[in-house]
Amino acid sequence: MTPITRIHPQAQWSDAVVHQHTAYFVEVPESGTDITNQTQALFAQAERTMALCGTDKRHILMATIYLQHMADRAAFNALWQAWLPEGCAPARACVSAELASPDYLLEIVFTVAVPRA
Amino acid sequence: MTPITRIHPQAQWSDAVVHQHTAYFVEVPESGTDITNQTQALFAQAERTMALCGTDKRHILMATIYLQHMADRAAFNALWQAWLPEGCAPARACVSAELASPDYLLEIVFTVAVPRA
Amino acid sequence: MTPITRIHPQAQWSDAVVHQHTAYFVEVPESGTDITNQTQALFAQAERTMALCGTDKRHILMATIYLQHMADRAAFNALWQAWLPEGCAPARACVSAELASPDYLLEIVFTVAVPRA
Repeated sequence: MTPITRIHPQAQWSDAVVHQHTAYFVEVPESGTDITNQTQALFAQAERTMALCGTDKRHILMATIYLQHMADRAAFNALWQAWLPEGCAPARACVSAELASPDYLLEIVFTVAVPRA
Repeated sequence: MTPITRIHPQAQWSDAVVHQHTAYFVEVPESGTDITNQTQALFAQAERTMALCGTDKRHILMATIYLQHMADRAAFNALWQAWLPEGCAPARACVSAELASPDYLLEIVFTVAVPRA
Repeated sequence: MTPITRIHPQAQWSDAVVHQHTAYFVEVPESGTDITNQTQALFAQAERTMALCGTDKRHILMATIYLQHMADRAAFNALWQAWLPEGCAPARACVSAELASPDYLLEIVFTVAVPRA
């Protein structure tokens, strides 16, 4: 068996899944009404998820950023750049798509390396 | 060499690709005219693809669900929840996007762990 | 530590990230004004990126193709098919989404195996 660790498995998704030192997870904003505070809330959640997986934001490999409105890209990018540790930027895609709730302004898919213990 | 196994390689895509105990594949519905029977057809195909890769739906790590119409989300989610084995939900993103054919109501990208033989 | 190699890390993204013999990178066209020359420019860039990662287009595992206009799909597919080496097609998703710049007609996310040295 290849071991799989699921963080908070629920009926439709797990908060994160770790396999072979790689964590897969998706974040939507749990709070906030504009791109700035939704992004800040999402980053805080992502940091908590990474901690549960035994990793942190220095280890992000790939991010797919879905923006409800592409017009929010510049505001998002400024926060993103400030959030990433120096020299640790992942590969990233950024596209606009309709999200599950009209209240969500963004959704991010993360693929993150998990250091060996 | 890192061995790569391609399932049914064709000119523009392979039905699945396996590398380092991880399978990558994408499913669109081969039949069906509404979200219910398209989703059921897609899940049946995904199970066949996983079997060809030597894995099954208990091992899904990540799913990206593209819905042609976000209005189909609730109907999709009910089928998705029923299909997933208890405790085995993957990380997942669900966004709406225009798909290759207007006849497709959904498309799913799967990343699935392949147990060691 | 699980070693991570970042190719050209910048403030908001790296040109590619390699972890456990898997390379993650995203390409947008650096030049071109129609789907044909944008796709050709993107493929040339992808080949350069793969070379920097120590791999090549025979090792693509998964591609997510975002087209600004789904009407460009047939033209893209002809180029894609000609570009892929025989028997080496990856799993692939192809959806339409609004991209970061209206000048971009496509964006591709690549996941590529990196052979062991």
